[in-house]
Amino acid sequence: MGRWEPDGRGRLERAALELYLERGFERTSVAEIAERAGLTERTFFRHYADKREVLFAGSSAMQELLVDAVARAPGSAPPMKVVAASFQAIAVPLEERRELVRRRQAVIAATPELLERELIKFASLSAALAGALRQRGVDDASAGLAAEVGIAVFKIASSRWIEQADGKDLSWFIGESFAGLETVIAGH
Amino acid sequence: MGRWEPDGRGRLERAALELYLERGFERTSVAEIAERAGLTERTFFRHYADKREVLFAGSSAMQELLVDAVARAPGSAPPMKVVAASFQAIAVPLEERRELVRRRQAVIAATPELLERELIKFASLSAALAGALRQRGVDDASAGLAAEVGIAVFKIASSRWIEQADGKDLSWFIGESFAGLETVIAGH
Repeated sequence: MGRWEPDGRGRLERAALELYLERGFERTSVAEIAERAGLTERTFFRHYADKREVLFAGSSAMQELLVDAVARAPGSAPPMKVVAASFQAIAVPLEERRELVRRRQAVIAATPELLERELIKFASLSAALAGALRQRGVDDASAGLAAEVGIAVFKIASSRWIEQADGKDLSWFIGESFAGLETVIAGH
Repeated sequence: MGRWEPDGRGRLERAALELYLERGFERTSVAEIAERAGLTERTFFRHYADKREVLFAGSSAMQELLVDAVARAPGSAPPMKVVAASFQAIAVPLEERRELVRRRQAVIAATPELLERELIKFASLSAALAGALRQRGVDDASAGLAAEVGIAVFKIASSRWIEQADGKDLSWFIGESFAGLETVIAGH
């Protein structure tokens, strides 16, 4: 990023989100996003491969946080406890951007192309998480299972957080959903 | 389907799969699929919305089987046991088409567009499964959780079944993976 474009990425992300909400994803062009951000189309493509990718700018940072948290977890914890604790590590930055996350999710839910991209991002997150668990000595099958199931539980927690009207925080929903997992297995 | 096209859908599916394996998804046209099946392009579009959809012809039947099995499960079973038993109901038809499923999965794994479509199908399956659990009186949060997690476990079981060299059946992997879920939660 040149010195004439402070926070170029952030400006492009906010501009894209605004435009997608105002006129829809399909009816927004990269040129319009760049213009709204006060930048050029060329700058847009220096940061993002396409119109979809700009909404997923935070996903690699989220993945890094998650993988780090798995590596730092106590050695003796069962794999699913490690995964649950690691998702708590990403709850804090997401909580701080709650309104942004909520608006972003509304655009994604309304746009099949974005929904597909989001699912791909989750699949990649699952692979990274499984890799981090294997690094801890968890066997292949258990690592894949704990990662995939952990993400399923996180997705539920995250939708409940976004949809709720009570002002509870994401961390609460994550705790609640991982506890709920034990309940749906054992029954009441 | 007219009387001059017995098993038109099956022929289109097999033709599409063959061509996708031979020359790749991108380089295959609907006209070529129709020609290989001995049918017209118009017939193709009477059955499928696009080139992707032809590979997911079985997904609505699978969804129906799953939802029926949830409805027929004993009233007292914990939600996750109901889900696990219901996936066993779809293991039989999948096992019978094992080689087809394996080849189909190879094409999907190699084609981002198909991978995205598959993820969308799983999201729809999850919603249907959650709906069937709610019909049994399972609360909203638990139904969503058991459905999403159940599908995560099934995906793991299904990949292990496809990748294995030992000749074990899908039913075995489903049982193994749902049991594995309890292990990754409790630890060893």
